[in-house]
Amino acid sequence: MLRLQRYYSSKAGVLTTIRDLLQIKDAPQGKIEIKGWIKSIRRLKKVSFIDLHDGTTSAPLNIVLPNVGEEEGTIASQRLKVGQSLKIENATLCLTPTREQPFELSCSRNDISVLGDVTSEYPLQKKYTSLAQLRRLPLWKHRTTYFGGLMRIRSHVETKLNSILAKEGLFKVQPPILTSSDCEGGGQLFNVEANALRNSKDKNAEKYFGKDAYLSVSTQLHLEILAHALSKVWTLTPCFRAEESDTNRHLAEFWMLEVEMCNIETTQQLTDFIQLITKRIAASLIENQENLLPKMRPEKGADERQVVIERWNKLLDDKWHKITYTDAIKVLQHRHAEKKFETEPLWGVALKSEHEKWLAGEHFQGPVFVTDYPKQTKAFYMKQNPDGETVACFDLLVPDMGEIVGGSVREDDYDKLISEMKLRKMDIEALQWYTELRRQGSMPHGGFGIGIERLVSWLYGAQNIRDAIPFHRTAKTVIEL
Amino acid sequence: MLRLQRYYSSKAGVLTTIRDLLQIKDAPQGKIEIKGWIKSIRRLKKVSFIDLHDGTTSAPLNIVLPNVGEEEGTIASQRLKVGQSLKIENATLCLTPTREQPFELSCSRNDISVLGDVTSEYPLQKKYTSLAQLRRLPLWKHRTTYFGGLMRIRSHVETKLNSILAKEGLFKVQPPILTSSDCEGGGQLFNVEANALRNSKDKNAEKYFGKDAYLSVSTQLHLEILAHALSKVWTLTPCFRAEESDTNRHLAEFWMLEVEMCNIETTQQLTDFIQLITKRIAASLIENQENLLPKMRPEKGADERQVVIERWNKLLDDKWHKITYTDAIKVLQHRHAEKKFETEPLWGVALKSEHEKWLAGEHFQGPVFVTDYPKQTKAFYMKQNPDGETVACFDLLVPDMGEIVGGSVREDDYDKLISEMKLRKMDIEALQWYTELRRQGSMPHGGFGIGIERLVSWLYGAQNIRDAIPFHRTAKTVIEL
Repeated sequence: MLRLQRYYSSKAGVLTTIRDLLQIKDAPQGKIEIKGWIKSIRRLKKVSFIDLHDGTTSAPLNIVLPNVGEEEGTIASQRLKVGQSLKIENATLCLTPTREQPFELSCSRNDISVLGDVTSEYPLQKKYTSLAQLRRLPLWKHRTTYFGGLMRIRSHVETKLNSILAKEGLFKVQPPILTSSDCEGGGQLFNVEANALRNSKDKNAEKYFGKDAYLSVSTQLHLEILAHALSKVWTLTPCFRAEESDTNRHLAEFWMLEVEMCNIETTQQLTDFIQLITKRIAASLIENQENLLPKMRPEKGADERQVVIERWNKLLDDKWHKITYTDAIKVLQHRHAEKKFETEPLWGVALKSEHEKWLAGEHFQGPVFVTDYPKQTKAFYMKQNPDGETVACFDLLVPDMGEIVGGSVREDDYDKLISEMKLRKMDIEALQWYTELRRQGSMPHGGFGIGIERLVSWLYGAQNIRDAIPFHRTAKTVIEL
Repeated sequence: MLRLQRYYSSKAGVLTTIRDLLQIKDAPQGKIEIKGWIKSIRRLKKVSFIDLHDGTTSAPLNIVLPNVGEEEGTIASQRLKVGQSLKIENATLCLTPTREQPFELSCSRNDISVLGDVTSEYPLQKKYTSLAQLRRLPLWKHRTTYFGGLMRIRSHVETKLNSILAKEGLFKVQPPILTSSDCEGGGQLFNVEANALRNSKDKNAEKYFGKDAYLSVSTQLHLEILAHALSKVWTLTPCFRAEESDTNRHLAEFWMLEVEMCNIETTQQLTDFIQLITKRIAASLIENQENLLPKMRPEKGADERQVVIERWNKLLDDKWHKITYTDAIKVLQHRHAEKKFETEPLWGVALKSEHEKWLAGEHFQGPVFVTDYPKQTKAFYMKQNPDGETVACFDLLVPDMGEIVGGSVREDDYDKLISEMKLRKMDIEALQWYTELRRQGSMPHGGFGIGIERLVSWLYGAQNIRDAIPFHRTAKTVIEL
């Protein structure tokens, strides 16, 4: 609103965006110039209606184009086609307060120039196209309401996270993507080598980095170094896992927001912080719901939009659910006695996706922190609890999706860390740089990682995290583009 | 200031940061708790002075610790060592308006707990350590004033860029890092394969992605797709080049901020936008100079801080220098006639680093946009100028560093693009997805890429871009951590 008024007061007819136009509450003076792509055309006897989109907001702009005469041959929109990019100059607005779009944008055919034509192969037509079909159209799918909406919400969430974390005094840092070892021990690494050396006939040629290099699966270990210099740090980086499993919750290339902070002694400090971040994001989404949430979505019921808005509102609650792993197992076993899971919930074994989804989706019906997992189910660097059996960690589970955040207090005692690594038969020499941090001015510290595609999918009500990244990478995916 | 006052009014003695403390203008009530690392200790007869840092700001906090008696054996700081992490409780402030630090923070030895001790091997002692020596201490170097300062300024610049671009209506997107081809044609690619498959004995095993995969050298081509759906997009991603050259301006892994926008028809629109962004960053740096710019730096003269502040102020000028490549060659040839460059400047040949540095550093003595390079010196996708010889592109050159931004209007005419690719003998089939964008609702568009490490180094007055990324990756670098 503000931006558009500025445009108008400074110069009549300045190029504006559909997002700005749709926020108009009173009819502005002057002519409007707008650019965008044709989403649909409806040709009636006296007028044609054109829906134009430019990707800046969820709803299209409805344009009224009077036909010159009543014969078909003089219909003004006759050479216009879905998918073309247009420039419209000299358009005028008049208010229509009783309709869904509170104004009518009118222009004549002479005010419209086609900037880019389409061929007959242009695949996005008015007819219904399933998400599965759209996924096979990576060049075009982001022009649709559903995929465009995911990109807009992702942008909004990332931008908001950036400003929240800066305000809380965290420094943004960029740990390395190319690393020398599989620090988490997951084993699903990608190996990297200079292409010229890989294809070299000289088998004795030295490796580009002098040794094997891999793509990072998590930047946490490097973040701990930086937290021990800057107190509180965060990063947003791509992570890579050569997953074999081809599910709607896994990607070979995904983005993770990781936070690492000194002065962390309990998981409570971390879960409070996550709650604070998430509430601010939710508040901001609610405030911007008009722009961010499309009116309708493919493969969904009509009230799906309301479900998502309720999900956002629920995040504003002060009291979030929290349960220890040990208590969660009791609840799960109780349920298992009545109605079997596929896998029996057993103390000491990692939770299965079905357990996570039931806990968040049915038992708590909302986000739940599960804390203090048995140490054998978690990574070596987590701080041991006084019971000697569990570690000071947590996962945040949400309905439909399961885990979207995982974090822990880190073991800052050198001797305990080394003995745990020995128990796990880890290569202590290779991680000497990491353990050394505990010998030189160590601080109690902890942190967490948020899977951005999982978070964004859940906030949008999307079922498949592949849709939350513009061009997804999974096993055997064709990566032509 | 605001934050600290909030701490104090709500609760006495709450943990605060050194950054907040140093902004105090009047003596607050209550006790202070602070954590940090010892930077130096000065032991006098009656008192010990401790410099504490926590990474939140450039300057350390000076703490006054009275000795219990006058014999050495009772000096309060005797078991304290440089590098230890401390918790200090019950400290009190009294104002010292005439000194450099406008207050004195006092505590007794009983108020100090050592959180993490150091061994005798801790390398950061008070004595002078060169940048070259510090570069070999990646675990510890970020605790120094110089390297910590670089991280803080990088964080500030990235956070600011995020908010500026959001305000200007650009969407943040995440194009893929794993790609199928060398789109820019530079040839210095890294190849990626699942480690398990690489080590597999089965030579017929299918590749993880079904074909060769590489690390992205630029996300631009994918950004163009997204700009054709969302109008204006940007991204911040790691880029990878298997550089052979081992200079202080090259990295194998670096971060690039790339912008791509529809409705761009001239380079002027892009250079105006870059100027707008850069001026806002400069204004924000000037406003935060107390926190961001250390008082002294190793290997530099005492007035180096003033040089950097002047550099920032100069960015606020409305008129930036701009010159066409053709005119720049004339200026360079004129200079060459008087005082030879190593390489003769010739029209049609790319500028050398020595030419760039002389233009920005000596001739214009400030940032300069060089525009309209000959097409054979630039990438295939740049829009041809009517002269048929040059393209609508620009580089932003700055003193000391050379190029920090490069951009262009893109060729949106399908036929012109294809004929240029044929001239360059490119694999048109492999880039069919990219050229197809010109056939389906194309828009005039353009964009640019900013090398973050180069920008940050230049803004900080750093000579080596390796220092602007926490853990640098270059050919033959040991990547132990």
